[in-house]
Amino acid sequence: MTFSDLELHVLTEIRPTEDELDRMYAIADQLMLDIRESGKAEGMMVGSVARKTCVHGDRDLDVFMLFDPSLPREDLEHEGLSLAWSIASKYTDIIKEKYAEHPYLNATIDDLDVDLVPCYKVQEATGIQSAVDRTPFHNRYIKARIESYTDDVLLLKQFVKAGGVYGSDQMTEGFAGYLCELLILHCGGFHQLLNTAAKWKPGIFIDIEQHAAKRFDEPMVVIDPVDPCRNVSASVSETRLLEFIELCQGYLKSPSKWFFYRPPICILTTEEVQALVSGRESAFIAIIFKTPPYIEDIVVPQLRKSLHTLNDLLRRNEFVVARADTWMLEDRCMLLFELLVDTLPAIRFHAGPPVTSTVNAQRFIEKYLLSESIFAGPFIREGKYGVELPRRFRRAVDLLSSSEVFSTALGKHVKSAMSDEFSVYYGIECWQPGFEPFISEFLQKSSPLVRIRRAEARSSQSLLETI
Amino acid sequence: MTFSDLELHVLTEIRPTEDELDRMYAIADQLMLDIRESGKAEGMMVGSVARKTCVHGDRDLDVFMLFDPSLPREDLEHEGLSLAWSIASKYTDIIKEKYAEHPYLNATIDDLDVDLVPCYKVQEATGIQSAVDRTPFHNRYIKARIESYTDDVLLLKQFVKAGGVYGSDQMTEGFAGYLCELLILHCGGFHQLLNTAAKWKPGIFIDIEQHAAKRFDEPMVVIDPVDPCRNVSASVSETRLLEFIELCQGYLKSPSKWFFYRPPICILTTEEVQALVSGRESAFIAIIFKTPPYIEDIVVPQLRKSLHTLNDLLRRNEFVVARADTWMLEDRCMLLFELLVDTLPAIRFHAGPPVTSTVNAQRFIEKYLLSESIFAGPFIREGKYGVELPRRFRRAVDLLSSSEVFSTALGKHVKSAMSDEFSVYYGIECWQPGFEPFISEFLQKSSPLVRIRRAEARSSQSLLETI
Repeated sequence: MTFSDLELHVLTEIRPTEDELDRMYAIADQLMLDIRESGKAEGMMVGSVARKTCVHGDRDLDVFMLFDPSLPREDLEHEGLSLAWSIASKYTDIIKEKYAEHPYLNATIDDLDVDLVPCYKVQEATGIQSAVDRTPFHNRYIKARIESYTDDVLLLKQFVKAGGVYGSDQMTEGFAGYLCELLILHCGGFHQLLNTAAKWKPGIFIDIEQHAAKRFDEPMVVIDPVDPCRNVSASVSETRLLEFIELCQGYLKSPSKWFFYRPPICILTTEEVQALVSGRESAFIAIIFKTPPYIEDIVVPQLRKSLHTLNDLLRRNEFVVARADTWMLEDRCMLLFELLVDTLPAIRFHAGPPVTSTVNAQRFIEKYLLSESIFAGPFIREGKYGVELPRRFRRAVDLLSSSEVFSTALGKHVKSAMSDEFSVYYGIECWQPGFEPFISEFLQKSSPLVRIRRAEARSSQSLLETI
Repeated sequence: MTFSDLELHVLTEIRPTEDELDRMYAIADQLMLDIRESGKAEGMMVGSVARKTCVHGDRDLDVFMLFDPSLPREDLEHEGLSLAWSIASKYTDIIKEKYAEHPYLNATIDDLDVDLVPCYKVQEATGIQSAVDRTPFHNRYIKARIESYTDDVLLLKQFVKAGGVYGSDQMTEGFAGYLCELLILHCGGFHQLLNTAAKWKPGIFIDIEQHAAKRFDEPMVVIDPVDPCRNVSASVSETRLLEFIELCQGYLKSPSKWFFYRPPICILTTEEVQALVSGRESAFIAIIFKTPPYIEDIVVPQLRKSLHTLNDLLRRNEFVVARADTWMLEDRCMLLFELLVDTLPAIRFHAGPPVTSTVNAQRFIEKYLLSESIFAGPFIREGKYGVELPRRFRRAVDLLSSSEVFSTALGKHVKSAMSDEFSVYYGIECWQPGFEPFISEFLQKSSPLVRIRRAEARSSQSLLETI
């Protein structure tokens, strides 16, 4: 575990200070004492602070309240929240109820972001009733093994954060903190992991406890050491995995501080966007609607599904989509499409039945024989009848503004939100307030490694200029 | 062999008259006498006149000159042509040398179009030295069997002519006269054939003499009764076969005189073309060049090949071809493309190596890392790197006018002709003199049955109007 000078320097900046940890542990201890004294549950500090794998400046403190598993589920939710409220309100009045699989409390105590999460105290990880019950097991598993790898975990977390692949949420589709810890344990350190991962191809399978009890087909499979039926990296998309691989390859070939300090996103000005959009000469179309009232991890997959199905709708109507992406703000969501062309000609080829399907063929011919509105046909093409009809949607904007949108497989909540109202924007109009970072990234899209290499080039350039 | 009133009426119009046949036989007899008297060869009348399956008004007389097979090939060509010249020049001075597999003479005698063709007199059809040697065997085979089916053959020929599927030339890709005769013999009459063919699907196999000695994979296979290794219908394309099938289905369902009298092609006026082209809103592009100095059956397949390869070139450059076709005049050829759009945006996605091909991936990133000319990227898409580059050919006209055209698999003679010179026309400019029938057909494209049904509708309409 010898680190390079660069890594040692990074570590001095990202290790939490003694003071920082002491202060967080003091608050955690007080909260756990309060929980114990209530006589209703047991307190447990979990998460990266508990394992000392948090990064300097982290403000997230997770305290779990372990209740007896004999308590009925509604009672757990009710008693759990009421206990959390009574404790948190002793220290702060900035308290919010939140909801993952269960409701929990989020409180700001001092400047810490504290989650108070009720769960069941089960004997075995396989006996859990919901995902939160598993967390104490993760905590115990990592805590018992991680101490000598703390610096490795810190470096890896900083590395994946800077690379933009940190976070198991649906928008990021990247690497969770727990996954980072497991990978370090599995490979035996930061350098060991990078050397291994640089040679990875999608289809990774890691089973530290050799107890997998289920098949998974995600691009990356890391069996949970405390649950043989769970893939810890289920959320990692193929692209995020490949981005991690390229970062490892790139760092090994030529490391630099930019692998640990994410170059800030360059938010474009309206003039820059105007220049880029008109320079590309493609057609930008954005659909905007109110964000459905559900958490991000429920809405985002539905946004992706909607993007996909509208992509198909465009394709079926012969519009070629160059790129498409989606973004979710607190209040509004955007589905963004970039098309090669926005307008198609009046003619559209419509394929009919095979000539040898006599009855259908005859019906097809009769339908179009004396029609005034066809351009040409019916004629035979590749064994089938076909006819050239007037195109219903000649402009992509008209298609995406029409009710055809609702005949596609939109995500359920997206469909409901769009049924209320949606707006379609075209060209530079897509540059709507709130979506500037998203559209800026879209227009400057590049892989994490490319972004890092460009930051290196810019900084050595500016260094030269100052000499 | 009972014909309907319609068919009987058609027969009275298409049967050759006694006078007509007598006159043609008199000329043929005189020519055969001349050949015999030369002492060099034997004369033989072949073709539809010889079999009395010619249609009223046919002016084609085929007289073969059968030479001893021991004569060397060059001598055959030389002596054959010189004998033909000496005979033909006794009756006319309108004489042309032509070339199929061998040279032969075409002479206009009275108003007959007479071919004088030298060939070898071989004992068995399998012993032939070239295709023309086979013709006397065809003639003997058909002549011995066809007499009672003469009317059936006449009706079928008129039927396929009117339907536009008559002729085994490369442009038509249809049914030869000999094929019509074989089909009538095989099925036992005109009605019998129509009833059978209405149920055909591509993949027809007919082997009258049950002696096939080779596998064929054309859509229609009719083994030559005089040559077990030859498919008589090799030239029939799938579309022409399907058009014949639809004609049979259509005639059986509801016969009319239009199945025997081809509705004339409606040649459009410049104003009509202008209206149609601008109404379709698509992009028409025509490439015109000098017709290569070879016979149609050599040039036409090369035109088709060139059309196909330029289609691919357009597709690779993201231009969507709605339709394409080609035409050959005596002096010029046209490759005609109709595109959905003529102009594409500046951006073009260029796919690179897989992320996991480390060396290539690195090279790809380095190539584009600091390039000023890219729009976005490199980024990861579907496992590979990709980059958005400026498009080289934004207008299809520019692409088809560029040297890229010569990097495709153009037909050899087409390539050579285009290397000398070619012109690219756009929109209404494609309406070039000589190509009016071709473009008129292109714009009004419909299957033979559809054309017939429309003619029926028009004539019953005009009948109503005159009442």
